Amino acid sequence: MPQDSKIPVVIVGGGFGGFAAARALEQANVEVILIDRANHHLFQPLLYQVATAALSPGDIAWPLRTLFRSQKNVRVVLGEVQKIDRGMRRIELDGGAPISYGCLVLAPGARHSYFGHHEWEAVAPGLKTLPDALEIRERMLIAFEEAERLKGTPDVRDQLTFVIVGGGPTGVELAGALAEIGRKAMTPDFHVLHEAECRILLVEGSGRLLEAFPPHLSRKAQAALESLGVTVMLNSHVKEVSSQGVLTGSEFIRSAHVIWAAGNVASPIVKSLDVPLDSAGRVVVRPDLSLSGDPWVFVIGDAAHCPTPEGRPLPGLAAVAMQEGRYVAKIIAGQIPEGSRTPFDYKDRGILATIGRAKAVAQFGPVGLSGVVAWLAWCFVHIFFLIGFRNRFRVMFEWIWYYVTFKPGARLIYWKDRHKNEH
Amino acid sequence: MPQDSKIPVVIVGGGFGGFAAARALEQANVEVILIDRANHHLFQPLLYQVATAALSPGDIAWPLRTLFRSQKNVRVVLGEVQKIDRGMRRIELDGGAPISYGCLVLAPGARHSYFGHHEWEAVAPGLKTLPDALEIRERMLIAFEEAERLKGTPDVRDQLTFVIVGGGPTGVELAGALAEIGRKAMTPDFHVLHEAECRILLVEGSGRLLEAFPPHLSRKAQAALESLGVTVMLNSHVKEVSSQGVLTGSEFIRSAHVIWAAGNVASPIVKSLDVPLDSAGRVVVRPDLSLSGDPWVFVIGDAAHCPTPEGRPLPGLAAVAMQEGRYVAKIIAGQIPEGSRTPFDYKDRGILATIGRAKAVAQFGPVGLSGVVAWLAWCFVHIFFLIGFRNRFRVMFEWIWYYVTFKPGARLIYWKDRHKNEH
Repeated sequence: MPQDSKIPVVIVGGGFGGFAAARALEQANVEVILIDRANHHLFQPLLYQVATAALSPGDIAWPLRTLFRSQKNVRVVLGEVQKIDRGMRRIELDGGAPISYGCLVLAPGARHSYFGHHEWEAVAPGLKTLPDALEIRERMLIAFEEAERLKGTPDVRDQLTFVIVGGGPTGVELAGALAEIGRKAMTPDFHVLHEAECRILLVEGSGRLLEAFPPHLSRKAQAALESLGVTVMLNSHVKEVSSQGVLTGSEFIRSAHVIWAAGNVASPIVKSLDVPLDSAGRVVVRPDLSLSGDPWVFVIGDAAHCPTPEGRPLPGLAAVAMQEGRYVAKIIAGQIPEGSRTPFDYKDRGILATIGRAKAVAQFGPVGLSGVVAWLAWCFVHIFFLIGFRNRFRVMFEWIWYYVTFKPGARLIYWKDRHKNEH
Repeated sequence: MPQDSKIPVVIVGGGFGGFAAARALEQANVEVILIDRANHHLFQPLLYQVATAALSPGDIAWPLRTLFRSQKNVRVVLGEVQKIDRGMRRIELDGGAPISYGCLVLAPGARHSYFGHHEWEAVAPGLKTLPDALEIRERMLIAFEEAERLKGTPDVRDQLTFVIVGGGPTGVELAGALAEIGRKAMTPDFHVLHEAECRILLVEGSGRLLEAFPPHLSRKAQAALESLGVTVMLNSHVKEVSSQGVLTGSEFIRSAHVIWAAGNVASPIVKSLDVPLDSAGRVVVRPDLSLSGDPWVFVIGDAAHCPTPEGRPLPGLAAVAMQEGRYVAKIIAGQIPEGSRTPFDYKDRGILATIGRAKAVAQFGPVGLSGVVAWLAWCFVHIFFLIGFRNRFRVMFEWIWYYVTFKPGARLIYWKDRHKNEH
């Protein structure tokens, strides 16, 4: 087959889904164009560890171009998608010529949803990208500096009160890490501050944490968080968020640091597809993950609503996105026509969430685990799925270092410094 | 001696000099207040490796508070000095109450000097702090992305032309690292770019590079740079710098990336001392590093002009700053009166500069080294002087990784991404 007859496959997003799809197309006779607005693949499950200064950005991110350096049928493009033109079958970016596709895989991910209160985003940042994580890290580190400076005034309490909204995996992991790092690692560096002054509140609207897990593991996770000093507030709906704090029910919690981990909304890119979206902005795809009436346009990962036999969409997990990526790659590589495709079938290999040192919960099929065993499983799985020897090695070293010394490695305030140089 | 009679020793700056002074006061019966505008000690000799994405910020920086966690007589304050009030014997910060001193050690370091052309700073950033390094890194990484996008247009040449002004150690090390990383590590990630398209020019006003070294080592350094593809331009004075490039003599070099490594000026903090400064803004100190007429105020490191018997000031080296820090700590700890102090005597243990893999120059007393031997000495010395096991281990790992794979570890563009989220 001559070179120029190769089908151009455009993949939007280099996260778990897009990366897996591009990788799985290695042997296919196609030309892959992978578009991302960052230049790296990010291992998002460990992002909360960057936000809490336990890991450095470079430990969990790796340039997409380097990952595909030896896969000659992939071209990486740094750019942000402005519009998907299904009529012309092309993608318009924020710069440069539009990119035509024969086949399109959309894996743009999700952002946080503020339930219609966009104004809360400025005071309650979410955690999806490296800049998000670095902003939360910076705020946390400066909070302790401010608290020391304000010692003896009532404001010190607000500075050391962290409110996390949302009791899903991100909220739980972030609360656990903040409690450990805030209380055990930060306060010893400040001779005038005491462990108990650093308060972490986890606010959840429903009756339990980690709703994807069975109730007994939710209770274990809650108990583990409470043993670290986290105040867990269930059945608490957030009514107002400001720079002063959070209003839940009738209680106003004063806090200078509100972090948002509640609810997702699919990337706005998918709006330009002009197809029905669900309430979380996700594209309702067919069982083969393609669009109705457009069998060579696929949506995968957090931006896709793939109905299951039980009627619920698949959860927004890395494992789902990766399996979806490989599934659509197989269809594309084999040029399987619409009528001959078997529906996507997610193999649930288990879910995990960590709370802190030697504290985690896990559910593998019928088997529920907690404590040290679940934590070791969590460590193993995360090291295993990290991409590349270098990142595995660095993360493992940092974890062992931190476990032994309780001195997390990346507590750098430099954006503050940066501002100060601008004079 | 009762607690409250302890002399308050204020140290401004947590670089090599300030850090060494604070450390050397561990056993002294004084109360040390260490003020820095960043929260970390930075290992500046490796900063160019952060600027070229070989190392992560967290590899060469470590929180000052953690370094002094177990040294109970040190209090760390995050703040920027606004004024030194010698009459009231106190320091005014950008926030909070003024801090009184019984004894003052000023180690605020230096910034780049643009020879009176402040407007060049915006287009030709220097390299002194982590934000400086991250900005240069970001610019370099985006340059390659832009070059790919502009492939086939004349602008691609400007994007891949890097001009470094100043042939001292920083300029030489940066030029070598940029040549290696730009040509060997970056271009293979861009299928359409070729090694030779990435041009690095090193512009030096005098007749040779590395003037602190003997002439034969300067020539070796130049040859090593040229073997990496760097164009070395000697006797070239910069007349104009703009976002389009650099004018040297009658030649205008078009370049989108000019980096400034020429000339230093002491931190402006020392101006408020109201004492004579030299042409580089440094305080001319007495042989005991104190101010004339104020024997308990010392200036050390890059902000001090300490005359040598040969009449030249000591060079701005980490080794000088560290020895000066320990020297003033001894005077302070012993409360040695003005008349009984022996003058500061710098022990020159050698100078080193690296150019690239297995390429360096070194001068230890009468012995000049180059090539692999000098490079191994450079590696050893830098690992040895890094603070703490963790940073040593991480840097060593990164170097070995990079040496073997030629894939530097920290090529992350996230400030671009950050901008894009602000909508």
